[in-house]
Amino acid sequence: MDKYIVNPWEVKGDIDYSKLIKEFGTEAINESLLKRIQKHTKELHPFLRRKIFFSHRDLNWLLDEYEKGNKFFLYTGRAPSGPIHIGHLIPWMFTKWLQDKFGAELWFQFPDEEKFLFKENLTLEDTKRFTYDNMLDVIALGFKVNKTKFLVDTVHAGVMYKEAVRVAKKITFSTVKASFGFDNQNNIGSIFYTAMQAVPAFLPSVLKKKNIPCLIPLGVDQDPHFRLTRDVIHKLGYYKPAIIHCRFLPGLGGMEKGKMSASDASTVIYTTDDEKTVRNKIMKYAFSGGQATIEEHRKKGGNPDIDVSYQWLTFFEENDKRLEEIYHSYKSGKLLTGELKQILVDKLNKFLKEHQKKREKAKKEIDKFMFKV
Amino acid sequence: MDKYIVNPWEVKGDIDYSKLIKEFGTEAINESLLKRIQKHTKELHPFLRRKIFFSHRDLNWLLDEYEKGNKFFLYTGRAPSGPIHIGHLIPWMFTKWLQDKFGAELWFQFPDEEKFLFKENLTLEDTKRFTYDNMLDVIALGFKVNKTKFLVDTVHAGVMYKEAVRVAKKITFSTVKASFGFDNQNNIGSIFYTAMQAVPAFLPSVLKKKNIPCLIPLGVDQDPHFRLTRDVIHKLGYYKPAIIHCRFLPGLGGMEKGKMSASDASTVIYTTDDEKTVRNKIMKYAFSGGQATIEEHRKKGGNPDIDVSYQWLTFFEENDKRLEEIYHSYKSGKLLTGELKQILVDKLNKFLKEHQKKREKAKKEIDKFMFKV
Repeated sequence: MDKYIVNPWEVKGDIDYSKLIKEFGTEAINESLLKRIQKHTKELHPFLRRKIFFSHRDLNWLLDEYEKGNKFFLYTGRAPSGPIHIGHLIPWMFTKWLQDKFGAELWFQFPDEEKFLFKENLTLEDTKRFTYDNMLDVIALGFKVNKTKFLVDTVHAGVMYKEAVRVAKKITFSTVKASFGFDNQNNIGSIFYTAMQAVPAFLPSVLKKKNIPCLIPLGVDQDPHFRLTRDVIHKLGYYKPAIIHCRFLPGLGGMEKGKMSASDASTVIYTTDDEKTVRNKIMKYAFSGGQATIEEHRKKGGNPDIDVSYQWLTFFEENDKRLEEIYHSYKSGKLLTGELKQILVDKLNKFLKEHQKKREKAKKEIDKFMFKV
Repeated sequence: MDKYIVNPWEVKGDIDYSKLIKEFGTEAINESLLKRIQKHTKELHPFLRRKIFFSHRDLNWLLDEYEKGNKFFLYTGRAPSGPIHIGHLIPWMFTKWLQDKFGAELWFQFPDEEKFLFKENLTLEDTKRFTYDNMLDVIALGFKVNKTKFLVDTVHAGVMYKEAVRVAKKITFSTVKASFGFDNQNNIGSIFYTAMQAVPAFLPSVLKKKNIPCLIPLGVDQDPHFRLTRDVIHKLGYYKPAIIHCRFLPGLGGMEKGKMSASDASTVIYTTDDEKTVRNKIMKYAFSGGQATIEEHRKKGGNPDIDVSYQWLTFFEENDKRLEEIYHSYKSGKLLTGELKQILVDKLNKFLKEHQKKREKAKKEIDKFMFKV
């Protein structure tokens, strides 16, 4: 019935995010919550102003605790299965902002077994390689080394597995079946996996022997894991983690294709793409909201709401005024599709040039970010 | 239909071991195999002579490899959920003999999450306590410290989990459902668990980066785990482990009650029971094959085949001739039940006195036995 699918293993179609809030049972981020956040952060991140982070669980409770002096830590992650594209960066850029604004410790999980368990042809050697590669992109975003801990499931299972079995004892196969659409042909590692993903949400509390609030910024497709495990974590005696959900950066092919997917190179800008590749991909593939001819465009104007280049600028152009100018200029027909694409190309290439420099430097930093037991 | 149940989580009834060989698809240990073993060990352990170890998988292959100079390692274990009783010791006593005779390294697993996952009321704090306690009994049996490595699942998950997910990827829920009688109400940790039990059978091969044959001595109730994972281990590129299965020491209450169960203190002799307790339990509870009165016993004789005290002596009296004398003496009515029980009491108390001394000493040895990554 739905024209879209959103779960941890599949995102497809033109997603109705307000409907998703109802389906998932989360809360919309409203103006009063934004004001409450702003009280602490002074400015609001564009992702908040623009409702790219659009939904949450228990964020008001988290701020209650914060205001009582009970600081939270951040938890997010990446299941390595390929190179990083700019869509992956969205929740992490926001997480970095949260780390800075709230002085929060970040636990970043690399569940290097997840995609191995869910993808037939992926080996643990592949995911190990991608873990290293993906870490470079995370570090390049500027997380504070003394406040950031990388957890790699197969490396840190020595501390994680024990906590995962506590979670696992309280979840039946029936429950994961219903939550994830599993069946009897699922392998027993994939069935267990959600317990491993729950662990970083309370591991700092275990290690520090006190209950610490947790905030998880993530793509909304990952919410089902925590819908399942938040109650379990609570039963184990820890706070339910608060969650803040973001929308997906659409693929180059357009909004109705769901999120950017690393498995289709032509719809994706990788963080390691060079200037020419970025330009070529956008010029060639970015779905346009413009008219068929220049004359028609000048007359009727373009449609920024379905134009991928414009949509991407809502993620990457931080200046609200500038973004608004572009919107109206395109809509009125003054700005042509090629010109709009060029704005995006310049924006992305500037960002990626910096990112790639930091990414190179990150090669020497990985060990400092790894959690030491 | 069957009057007995044998699986990793339940052993009940009067077990027909020859039927079990057919059901489980294992092979009986026959005279030619015994001779082949004896070629290497000079003498045969009473557990082999008496068919207490009665069944195997691939033992001839293991000896082929051994004869080619390809030495095997041993793997056995204990899922801690309570104190050790003398029934638990049977496979380990035999494992110790194999270690001595074949100069084999032993990997001893303490899967401290297993019983936690399968028993509602058991906590990980309980299983941790029992792990320590149970290790004392294992060490007391005299395993060589430089050839024995203890693996504790929650402690060694740092090396084990990665290998377990390789196993888990190749096992579906359908398969564990069929093998273990699981249903949708099983928790996801219990579903995953068999993958962790598979790991020590090839972990030494992983760590030493060469394929090393493995022999697993165990109670036949544990066979279903390996029936499931032997093929998987092979698919991962390692030898299928060979297995040698033993019968159960019956509980004091009699043969038809299945194996000795730690959950019923009156049917069990713990390794820490003092002399008086051992005497009292055996005199009071050991099921007797004798007659109702002394007169009748003298006339008709006793039945050693159903007499628990005699059956226990087949496990603990090493001298064949002495055992045969007792058999005939009891059968003829010459030996009374009380006298037979006294023979067993003396035998066990002598054994336990030594064991308890070694158990005390073992408290200082645990760390030396722990596998260091």
